[in-house]
Amino acid sequence: MQRIVSGMRSTGKLHFGHYLGVIQNWVKLQHEYESYFFVADWHALTTKYDKTETLKQDVKDVVADWLACGIDPEVSTIYVQSLVPEIAELNVYLSMVTPQNWVERDPTLKDMAKILRTKEGTNSQISYGLMGYPVLMSADIMMFNAHAVPVGNDQVAHIEITRDIARRFNNIYKTDFFNEPKPLLNDCSLICGLDGNKMGKSFQNDIKISDTEEVTAKKIMTAITDRSRLRRDDLGHPEQCEVAFKYWKIFGDENQVETVRCECEKGKRGCADCKRQLGALINEKFAPIREKRKYYDEHPEEVERIIKEGSEKARIEARKTIEKVREIIGMY
Amino acid sequence: MQRIVSGMRSTGKLHFGHYLGVIQNWVKLQHEYESYFFVADWHALTTKYDKTETLKQDVKDVVADWLACGIDPEVSTIYVQSLVPEIAELNVYLSMVTPQNWVERDPTLKDMAKILRTKEGTNSQISYGLMGYPVLMSADIMMFNAHAVPVGNDQVAHIEITRDIARRFNNIYKTDFFNEPKPLLNDCSLICGLDGNKMGKSFQNDIKISDTEEVTAKKIMTAITDRSRLRRDDLGHPEQCEVAFKYWKIFGDENQVETVRCECEKGKRGCADCKRQLGALINEKFAPIREKRKYYDEHPEEVERIIKEGSEKARIEARKTIEKVREIIGMY
Repeated sequence: MQRIVSGMRSTGKLHFGHYLGVIQNWVKLQHEYESYFFVADWHALTTKYDKTETLKQDVKDVVADWLACGIDPEVSTIYVQSLVPEIAELNVYLSMVTPQNWVERDPTLKDMAKILRTKEGTNSQISYGLMGYPVLMSADIMMFNAHAVPVGNDQVAHIEITRDIARRFNNIYKTDFFNEPKPLLNDCSLICGLDGNKMGKSFQNDIKISDTEEVTAKKIMTAITDRSRLRRDDLGHPEQCEVAFKYWKIFGDENQVETVRCECEKGKRGCADCKRQLGALINEKFAPIREKRKYYDEHPEEVERIIKEGSEKARIEARKTIEKVREIIGMY
Repeated sequence: MQRIVSGMRSTGKLHFGHYLGVIQNWVKLQHEYESYFFVADWHALTTKYDKTETLKQDVKDVVADWLACGIDPEVSTIYVQSLVPEIAELNVYLSMVTPQNWVERDPTLKDMAKILRTKEGTNSQISYGLMGYPVLMSADIMMFNAHAVPVGNDQVAHIEITRDIARRFNNIYKTDFFNEPKPLLNDCSLICGLDGNKMGKSFQNDIKISDTEEVTAKKIMTAITDRSRLRRDDLGHPEQCEVAFKYWKIFGDENQVETVRCECEKGKRGCADCKRQLGALINEKFAPIREKRKYYDEHPEEVERIIKEGSEKARIEARKTIEKVREIIGMY
């Protein structure tokens, strides 16, 4: 069975965008690959080293969301990056063989630097650690010698540097130990935020996986619809509906989508009613996830146990890699 | 008792320059400070990642030389950098709070880059790891929360960045955990190489601590003297003697130095005889060190045991620091 490694920053409670864009894919992949999923708490420090008050809880929230969505700790290895400190050691070895100009040209870094510059109140200086983001990311992937890395369309270039570093390590030390991990393209649905823009925590336009039914229904009621409709019986234009109809297409089945389209076009469906129905549908779909999420909220010790056990399991593999890497380099 | 941390790269067998310039000072300091002395095998990779064939033996040779010169493993903690992997984790945390432009302006880095550029056959690209030399060096020092770092006159600037990083960490996380280590100036003698230039392994002008009496005597015979003397009874100019008289001033007592000076000036001492005497004197002085060095050559298992025990001891302290640092930052 081939291996994949994928991670998410410890940003706290996840939203529908994470679920549809990443986690749903992981849930499927975990049965096809030996899967390592990690909370990237070190990467979180690259831009938020000075905002760590909620870090601990954020890590637990991310894992609770994964578990609720169906990442199975009996099938996948769930761990926290900083609980596998071997990654830091591998990071040192990879740093030594990675030319500085490779990290400078990395698109991930450019994205990060942009985020940093546009974030209000964040110290805008690029740190040495942020600069090394591509190397640390490569250490994450190579630590478990992944064969592939699940990525979105826009991220394919991001793992190119990992392939380059793996190849360079193999060349320098005349080994074929490291795989050159392949991008595993994820054709999942992108969901916009309630205001029609990219869904994001900081834009306050997101629906959290852990939101209650009430909160979810209420948030859906704020979704932007067809701005040209002023009265309930105005004829609607579903394809111009900025959010609600898009959500229908994601969450509804074919029949439901057709019904909504027809009724809207004929002015037989007011936007408020439409969103009330949509909220109910989403709440129905998310009921099992919500139930599990609530369970983990009430049993934080179980989340902690899963993190502990997963990280220990990951560490056993990591130690094997590090020992092998030390041997290949010729360390004492 | 205050703590010091100091290290040497794993360059293999050490020479008189190391002994007089560094180790002699350590031997004295170990009784005044709680001392951590380490072989910097990760730092060796910053410029020699592709020349690791002799790394293991180099580490052992360095430690055997230290032991022979009087570093006492019962008094000092002797360890190998890569056997304390907590240093790599601390390196990650420090990387995140160190602005990229601090590492770029560091004089150590500039020295390193120069060495790299002038070294024939070495890939002249600066790696991300070499770039981070000042951060890793700071992690070495801060791992044991050193109060001071023994340095030569020319290295005072090198630990300025460590003080800066320690101060920045303390400021960001509102703590006073890390000391700002002070430079501990070392007023030891500098010894030139046999050709009058800086003594260095790669210049083939050095005398190794582990050289036999025969080799040492032979090498001393090649030392440059007063080039203006052509015949045995030409009047000499001790102060123009490029190497031999300088060595006399380092190794001889006052009477010996005066005798040499007078005889040389009066043309009563030929250079060959002078160097024969000098070789005998040096061999006499180094006899106890040579004997110990030979012992460790014949008992490599003892060197290995000392490295193992010292590194384990260092790791216990390192784990305490890392736990504290994780707690201060607020890591999971």
